[in-house]
Amino acid sequence: MKALEERILKDGKVYPGNILKVDSFLNHQIDIKLMDEMAEAFYEKYKDAGINKIMTIEASGIAIAYAVGRVFGVPMVFAKKSKSLNIGGDVYSSTITSYTYKKDYKIILSKNFLSEKDNVLIVDDFLATGSAMKGLLEICRMAGAKVSGVGICIEKGFQKGGKEITEMGYDLTSLAVVEEMTDDGKIKFRN
Amino acid sequence: MKALEERILKDGKVYPGNILKVDSFLNHQIDIKLMDEMAEAFYEKYKDAGINKIMTIEASGIAIAYAVGRVFGVPMVFAKKSKSLNIGGDVYSSTITSYTYKKDYKIILSKNFLSEKDNVLIVDDFLATGSAMKGLLEICRMAGAKVSGVGICIEKGFQKGGKEITEMGYDLTSLAVVEEMTDDGKIKFRN
Repeated sequence: MKALEERILKDGKVYPGNILKVDSFLNHQIDIKLMDEMAEAFYEKYKDAGINKIMTIEASGIAIAYAVGRVFGVPMVFAKKSKSLNIGGDVYSSTITSYTYKKDYKIILSKNFLSEKDNVLIVDDFLATGSAMKGLLEICRMAGAKVSGVGICIEKGFQKGGKEITEMGYDLTSLAVVEEMTDDGKIKFRN
Repeated sequence: MKALEERILKDGKVYPGNILKVDSFLNHQIDIKLMDEMAEAFYEKYKDAGINKIMTIEASGIAIAYAVGRVFGVPMVFAKKSKSLNIGGDVYSSTITSYTYKKDYKIILSKNFLSEKDNVLIVDDFLATGSAMKGLLEICRMAGAKVSGVGICIEKGFQKGGKEITEMGYDLTSLAVVEEMTDDGKIKFRN
């Protein structure tokens, strides 16, 4: 998506360790107009897929999921990061690994809000190693929900997440795929 | 706000310890149409206040803040709960107490996204003891930002937060104020 790539080039900041900071418009301060444009792009792709629910994970996925749910006219639901390893029976849970914080944690979703009746579009702001996304996909499997697509704002194409999720058979749509970042701050997108 | 009160009566669940669960439409699964209606109510109240930024705290404030930012046509920014007590110099930070989890933690906001040029409407899904809200207000004070209003979806009127924030001189707008909840599940609203 052209507008997103241009915005990344204009306002994104590259830091050592392949860190891309886009917190001025995507995941700390939010540019709502850009977010709504991204939601429209996902809608164009999936509008005929019969989607009845948008799913994401807190916290930075919530804004894009809200925007996408709005254009689809369906509810959105977000998985929570659990503070406790003791999980009750009324939730689906999956263990994911945070590479940023070098530890495992659980994500949970109430069984009341996802079932085999649901046809889901999962969205998130970033895809890198894919650990969080695989946790969400596992929760959908547990619930018996259909996953019609995975929609990502920015994919780090040089990390394994995108490839693995595609190989698992899911339909992945990334609005911008960063192919390469150099330590002097240059960003190259996949065509 | 009538539609919100009716929805709380219909789908809210009361649990011992004055817990009100509204996770089917407000803070786990999100009813986007209702959220947009709440945003319109805040807009009606504050549309002439010159607001240029909406502020909230992750995670469950993000959806309503997005909706409100959208109707105002301004960016929104959310404070983050810090995993580290070591906070760098490029953020404002404030310590707040979680009564749910019985511990203190820091909330942070990048200095890039709030300054004395900002005229802020702070919004959140819930107001009870007011600890998180006071943290957000302290960050606005540090930044020199003007706070034109505090907008809350559901206030627990029998807890101290609303009274204290009003006494601090802020203009508080709660769309539903729960005056009383009984252990048999009855909910009474303030007129």
